[in-house]
Amino acid sequence: MSAAKKTLNVAMIGQGFMGRAHSNAFHQVGHFFDTPFDLRRKVICGRNRETLDAMAARWGWDETATEWQAVVERKDIDVVDIATPNNLHAPVALAAAKAGKILLCEKPLAMSVAEAEQMAAAARKVPNLVWFNYRRVPAIALAKRIMDEGRLGQVYHYRAVYLQSWGPEREGVWRFNKSVAGSGAMGDLLSHSVDLALMLNGPISELSAMLRTFAPPPRDVDDAALMLARFANGSIGSFEATRYAVGRRNYNQFEIHGSKGMLRFNLEDLNRLEFFDSNDKQEILGPHQVLVTGPGHPYVDRYWPPGHIIGYEHTFISTLADFLDALAKNQPFHANFDDATQVQRVLEAVEHSAADGRWEKLEKGARAAD
Amino acid sequence: MSAAKKTLNVAMIGQGFMGRAHSNAFHQVGHFFDTPFDLRRKVICGRNRETLDAMAARWGWDETATEWQAVVERKDIDVVDIATPNNLHAPVALAAAKAGKILLCEKPLAMSVAEAEQMAAAARKVPNLVWFNYRRVPAIALAKRIMDEGRLGQVYHYRAVYLQSWGPEREGVWRFNKSVAGSGAMGDLLSHSVDLALMLNGPISELSAMLRTFAPPPRDVDDAALMLARFANGSIGSFEATRYAVGRRNYNQFEIHGSKGMLRFNLEDLNRLEFFDSNDKQEILGPHQVLVTGPGHPYVDRYWPPGHIIGYEHTFISTLADFLDALAKNQPFHANFDDATQVQRVLEAVEHSAADGRWEKLEKGARAAD
Amino acid sequence: MSAAKKTLNVAMIGQGFMGRAHSNAFHQVGHFFDTPFDLRRKVICGRNRETLDAMAARWGWDETATEWQAVVERKDIDVVDIATPNNLHAPVALAAAKAGKILLCEKPLAMSVAEAEQMAAAARKVPNLVWFNYRRVPAIALAKRIMDEGRLGQVYHYRAVYLQSWGPEREGVWRFNKSVAGSGAMGDLLSHSVDLALMLNGPISELSAMLRTFAPPPRDVDDAALMLARFANGSIGSFEATRYAVGRRNYNQFEIHGSKGMLRFNLEDLNRLEFFDSNDKQEILGPHQVLVTGPGHPYVDRYWPPGHIIGYEHTFISTLADFLDALAKNQPFHANFDDATQVQRVLEAVEHSAADGRWEKLEKGARAAD
Amino acid sequence: MSAAKKTLNVAMIGQGFMGRAHSNAFHQVGHFFDTPFDLRRKVICGRNRETLDAMAARWGWDETATEWQAVVERKDIDVVDIATPNNLHAPVALAAAKAGKILLCEKPLAMSVAEAEQMAAAARKVPNLVWFNYRRVPAIALAKRIMDEGRLGQVYHYRAVYLQSWGPEREGVWRFNKSVAGSGAMGDLLSHSVDLALMLNGPISELSAMLRTFAPPPRDVDDAALMLARFANGSIGSFEATRYAVGRRNYNQFEIHGSKGMLRFNLEDLNRLEFFDSNDKQEILGPHQVLVTGPGHPYVDRYWPPGHIIGYEHTFISTLADFLDALAKNQPFHANFDDATQVQRVLEAVEHSAADGRWEKLEKGARAAD
Repeated sequence: MSAAKKTLNVAMIGQGFMGRAHSNAFHQVGHFFDTPFDLRRKVICGRNRETLDAMAARWGWDETATEWQAVVERKDIDVVDIATPNNLHAPVALAAAKAGKILLCEKPLAMSVAEAEQMAAAARKVPNLVWFNYRRVPAIALAKRIMDEGRLGQVYHYRAVYLQSWGPEREGVWRFNKSVAGSGAMGDLLSHSVDLALMLNGPISELSAMLRTFAPPPRDVDDAALMLARFANGSIGSFEATRYAVGRRNYNQFEIHGSKGMLRFNLEDLNRLEFFDSNDKQEILGPHQVLVTGPGHPYVDRYWPPGHIIGYEHTFISTLADFLDALAKNQPFHANFDDATQVQRVLEAVEHSAADGRWEKLEKGARAAD
Repeated sequence: MSAAKKTLNVAMIGQGFMGRAHSNAFHQVGHFFDTPFDLRRKVICGRNRETLDAMAARWGWDETATEWQAVVERKDIDVVDIATPNNLHAPVALAAAKAGKILLCEKPLAMSVAEAEQMAAAARKVPNLVWFNYRRVPAIALAKRIMDEGRLGQVYHYRAVYLQSWGPEREGVWRFNKSVAGSGAMGDLLSHSVDLALMLNGPISELSAMLRTFAPPPRDVDDAALMLARFANGSIGSFEATRYAVGRRNYNQFEIHGSKGMLRFNLEDLNRLEFFDSNDKQEILGPHQVLVTGPGHPYVDRYWPPGHIIGYEHTFISTLADFLDALAKNQPFHANFDDATQVQRVLEAVEHSAADGRWEKLEKGARAAD
Repeated sequence: MSAAKKTLNVAMIGQGFMGRAHSNAFHQVGHFFDTPFDLRRKVICGRNRETLDAMAARWGWDETATEWQAVVERKDIDVVDIATPNNLHAPVALAAAKAGKILLCEKPLAMSVAEAEQMAAAARKVPNLVWFNYRRVPAIALAKRIMDEGRLGQVYHYRAVYLQSWGPEREGVWRFNKSVAGSGAMGDLLSHSVDLALMLNGPISELSAMLRTFAPPPRDVDDAALMLARFANGSIGSFEATRYAVGRRNYNQFEIHGSKGMLRFNLEDLNRLEFFDSNDKQEILGPHQVLVTGPGHPYVDRYWPPGHIIGYEHTFISTLADFLDALAKNQPFHANFDDATQVQRVLEAVEHSAADGRWEKLEKGARAAD
Repeated sequence: MSAAKKTLNVAMIGQGFMGRAHSNAFHQVGHFFDTPFDLRRKVICGRNRETLDAMAARWGWDETATEWQAVVERKDIDVVDIATPNNLHAPVALAAAKAGKILLCEKPLAMSVAEAEQMAAAARKVPNLVWFNYRRVPAIALAKRIMDEGRLGQVYHYRAVYLQSWGPEREGVWRFNKSVAGSGAMGDLLSHSVDLALMLNGPISELSAMLRTFAPPPRDVDDAALMLARFANGSIGSFEATRYAVGRRNYNQFEIHGSKGMLRFNLEDLNRLEFFDSNDKQEILGPHQVLVTGPGHPYVDRYWPPGHIIGYEHTFISTLADFLDALAKNQPFHANFDDATQVQRVLEAVEHSAADGRWEKLEKGARAAD
């Protein structure tokens, strides 16, 4: 924490739920991590002037703006953070990339693979991040470590569900509008499950899927997405994402069976990982219920002592800390725009398969960068 | 329990794991239920003479026999119980039906739909039962009651997994041999999940499926079966059955989301049902963890006081008790050969879909009798 | 299972809940275990002639009788099983011991330490058992094995609760009447917890306790018993037994912390043991959730394949199997009358401490025979 | 959030674990709550100059100081926050109260009841708070609401454990030194359990306790504290606090049984409350597993949408928000110095009872202000 730390000026485009989560991360990252940069919350940009002023005041943004086009070209801006509805991701990202800005973008990256590829191409010239924040849940980072060390052996099964139940209070939100959101549960929830699957278990080579809208018109996005998959590593998978899982709030679960063990995680129990280790003595074989709050666990030593729970917002903080660290060291960071494009390819294959009722091959494969 | 109770003489064909489970049920049913008939364990029939004698002695069978053909035609036999490998179900059932015997048969009923239909046609002349024993798990019977009362509202999602992990000690069993077993995880495990789904949620109208054998040849049965489904009631489903779920022993789970609530059950936790009731006051909304051991719960008042756990074997006892009761009252019993034929239709559609990579329509529908 | 197996004729005194549980065990033990003796259900003895006849018919007792005094002296009786209300344990046991019968007795053994000591002295001349059936829960037998192997290290804490909630349907039962039951939750529930504690963790040297009756007079037994304890091995303990734990049915739990690990068990989840092993690698440290259904687990290989749940009644069957095995081998069996007398000493100390508000020393110690 | 909000200048004395937790709360409270005051982190005061500078830089304190005496008398300071080792609470609080400062103090409040009473007397002249932060866990605030509405009926049992396991890495910390900490597990952990019990269930009238030090000298504080209690409302309680619960990290649990229901909470599962409601229909009776993340739940609407988990640190933020709100409205706030004095009376009774082996009456009662 020397005085010589460079300051990065941030412009955030968007002021909704994600705008709050990002604002909090910009605030908190330096409190818990030894960041190589200082972040200055320079401009927040949004359409609703009234809420924008209140949000800027509350979260300490120096300035407000209503036109993103001007903001992303400002010379004094180093970082452009995109927290808008999905249909604005591409225009903002492309303009910001052209202006040479560091790019942070919410998921799903784009409205289509074509759009995602264009964005990824542009982003290759600048440091970039996609907010697949669940990669930095400590329990998930631990799961990745266990997978990478080969402690699950040959993987047989990958199973993921992302279960939410949206009440009537959500009526009218942009996420129900296809022209703005691109898709429903698929882009919002399945994208998270797919990103984690690609990270943990590698590329998907083939899939069969179904999309379903339970709500009456004019609702035009999917409420649920189901998919069967074959992975390049020989394992098979089952995925389900829905906003109609009455009884569940934010039940983002995966379960993986390999020849040597099992892993299970559920976001409603964010601080735990279940790990079955077939190397345990036979009579005490059983899933370990690991409270992933240290010692020896990813990220958590930056926060509170062992046993002291962290929450949803910390996943954004840890993501940002890793990004800044990679930025300072000029190292690759994941998930980036290329990673998110792989997710987009899977989502597009889901749409194709759902439309024509056939298995869909992912010819390029959906490779997870590592 | 008057002295005038009629005695039914039972012949059991088979002496394996299921032979033990059935023998126990024949013994125990009268201890816990007020049965309208006495059951006499008259003949046990099997090929291995040595184990057969030991088994007869241990479980109190009066006689042993090695040729089922003669046994099923004996005048003094009232009930033929089929606990053989799958490929013998049809010949034994057809012969016994022809001889007018009451028929009890293990699942899966048959090697094919054609065979099942032939058996079901023959069985319509006699009282008959298929041992889909999990219908009588108290928690599942309670789930059915809740569904039948409409307390889940419109169903959106049905999700089932049946997860086992078979160790090397099982090598060589007949269940791995296609000519004897017909299929692997599909007939053994998925059949249970499908039977419960048809009972609880009604017919499946369309499905897309995948079968997978992880083991090397000469293994020729599926080790895993995955399936997506559309139900006639408008809900959608996801199914998975596998013998390669390291970390799970007998994890037969279903989870159902409707507009008014959620149900969840898992066989490794046989005495519990999870029920989310959206009618609860908002601040205490959450799945009820119901210990289904009474009072007010199906079957359990026949066994022990509330809070005293029952086990796997009791599902056979309660099934038999219900069957005898229906027999005395000349009422329909389920699951019978017709019900099991519906399951067989789904399994055959799974095979077709897995082979040709397309959604498979169930034209007649797989209707669950009620 | 040779034809030369000796038959033991059993007389059971009592026909209530425990009479059913024992009858079932006498039936089932030979089905699941290779017993060195055959058991014949010779006489069942009770006061209520009507229920007695029904019970004898249902459970296959050859004869009925209403006067236990004559029964226990019959030459053709080998085993006297006492399943009466508590105040009859002593007279029946003393008479049966005098007649040289093998003695099986329900818990709590006696109405007082003096009575227990007299019974234990008489019983030393004959094979004897007290039905502390929970010792043979597979998960508890596994816990004992882990303790005996020293895998918990130095024990620091022992914590037990036995939580039930008795509804109005139980009003009027003999268990609420002090002159018949001796005590309430203390003798009925705390006795189980104390027996397990002595078995697992050794003698208690000192205790402070509280008894409480929530119900109005004429209820004269305790509804709840609480106790703090010092064990001879240096660990400290906390115990609670109650019939007023609304929300719990049969929640018999213990939790033990030692320098090397933790064990936790709860009877409402009878087939599971939780074991924390501090030797696990740090990052996967967490309680193992062991589904104690084999392989390698006590008793369960006698019942069903791994993953197939057993229930409450099996604890009686396994207890009886072990007793018959010890009897044939002329080896000591536990829990016997001496073990149960140690439990009685603890209960009496609880009463003294509750009465005078002081810590009570157990001068002889409450030694668990092993 | 008008521009006219008054700013309160804060001086924090202390820079350890609690100093971080408080710094975070001062930062975050205005981000999530509409606070009536702005808080300025004016001075942080500590002995270790090196860590102090780093901490001030990281958490944005304007100034540092090493002598608390001068700081607490500064005219420009409005709030003194005490996050020192326990033996400094009294001198700092008394000096700050004398200087008319708003007082915030860590728990346990004092080294003795006498000290606590002196502090409470002084604090009555100024707004004051004690950081019993767990009162603002949303699940616990919901539990209090349920209790206050009488939805548990007559309370029978209160049961609390606070289980931690401290590894060798903690050797040498001030919390092991009696002259600095006052006590061990008792003041550190049991104090939390007692505060919650007094808040939820009212005064304790009598107790019997045991203290135990497992570690060898020179360790001179208790490692474990056990206690039985009688509450003024007629219920009875059991408490245990320990740093030797291998297998548990921060297992702060309470369980309450009343005539109409049960409540259970555990801090390792901070976002959940278990509630058994005996008014539920009999067949679906079972503990509700409530994910206390809204809607309708205390505090959580200030943070993230339903289903998005919060953590340990949020309890401090919500505590501070409530305090500032009460301050602006000139309303009483709890827990304050008087509440903490009641906790201190219980702890002192624990010490007396542990020393003389008798039940200890709390003559004044340990009344929880409401």
